[in-house]
Amino acid sequence: MPEMMMMMNNSGEQIVDIYPLSNYFFGSKPASDAFKDETLADRALRLKSKFDAHGMRTCVEAVILVELFKHPHVLLLQSKNCIYKLPGGRLRPGESDIDGLKRKLLSKLCADDDNYRTDWEVSECIGTWWKSDFETLPYPYLPSGDKIPKECTKLYLVKLPSNRDFIVPKNFKLLAVPMCQLHENHKTYGSIIAGIPQLLSRFSINMVPS
Amino acid sequence: MPEMMMMMNNSGEQIVDIYPLSNYFFGSKPASDAFKDETLADRALRLKSKFDAHGMRTCVEAVILVELFKHPHVLLLQSKNCIYKLPGGRLRPGESDIDGLKRKLLSKLCADDDNYRTDWEVSECIGTWWKSDFETLPYPYLPSGDKIPKECTKLYLVKLPSNRDFIVPKNFKLLAVPMCQLHENHKTYGSIIAGIPQLLSRFSINMVPS
Repeated sequence: MPEMMMMMNNSGEQIVDIYPLSNYFFGSKPASDAFKDETLADRALRLKSKFDAHGMRTCVEAVILVELFKHPHVLLLQSKNCIYKLPGGRLRPGESDIDGLKRKLLSKLCADDDNYRTDWEVSECIGTWWKSDFETLPYPYLPSGDKIPKECTKLYLVKLPSNRDFIVPKNFKLLAVPMCQLHENHKTYGSIIAGIPQLLSRFSINMVPS
Repeated sequence: MPEMMMMMNNSGEQIVDIYPLSNYFFGSKPASDAFKDETLADRALRLKSKFDAHGMRTCVEAVILVELFKHPHVLLLQSKNCIYKLPGGRLRPGESDIDGLKRKLLSKLCADDDNYRTDWEVSECIGTWWKSDFETLPYPYLPSGDKIPKECTKLYLVKLPSNRDFIVPKNFKLLAVPMCQLHENHKTYGSIIAGIPQLLSRFSINMVPS
């Protein structure tokens, strides 16, 4: 379990402090080889051989919030082909969710010479999605029957401090997208990102002035 | 805060035990006057005058799970006009979420001579939806600007014991609907119910054999 500082309001809701977008600095670094181009067929083959070797693939992704125009915004990475992703990625075999997510956040959102100086406050898991096959859509429940899912994606709420530098590989843009634009917008963002406003609706979001 | 018995699995996920549908008994009772027929225009007028008197209307609704065919199902009330609802309803002014939800569950799911003998294990709030006006769609975030929302609907996970009688007013049917049928099925169930699988995806659902 992550260590959590939980503040509750008087209805028992957990409070999440968010800070203005203008509190943060955004820079770039060279594109990483890790973000390789590959065909969908090559990807399916690679995933299948990894599944045979290591079992279900687990991805961990970060939901990071900032405030803009008095409305919560979610940080998304946009690749050159206009695909939107949450910052995160695949766990190594045996790696814990929290360690893996911190490693991915350092590689995707921090300077290469950061040397793990930036710490990330990974809070609780807010949602999980499963794929029963490598090329199917993800669902927020386990596949029926006794089938072992091929992939599991876990979303974690990551709480920002009041200031931070974000240094992003040049083949991505980091965008702050308003909750009202994500909600039920499956066509643009896919089911996982389009569902984030619902997953966050149980929290009391406190917009801290700059 | 409700008193909670939280069991975690070794990934830190909260475990929710669910029991087979066949463990429960389903019966009926006379239709209640409280479920009145009214036109949409009359309803809007009634809600407006209540808002002027008491401020934002708060509804509390229960997400109750059972197991069928090794898949989690959600209990929904279906009215004669084929509208699906979660069991629950509006809080009285000053009433707590938990007390109000228990009162509503007694009136909608228990025999009239129950005399509060049935207790309900109301667990945590799993999601919240707001309406900025009486006749708009609900959204899982607060309306932008300084507008006071007109209505707030809070979903609570309610945990069943291994056995229970459900006694439902004759003008409703109580249905167990599979998660896979609810997911993203806004047209049939509306946004709030269609989003329940996502809200539950962070829990580890343990199907207890009968």
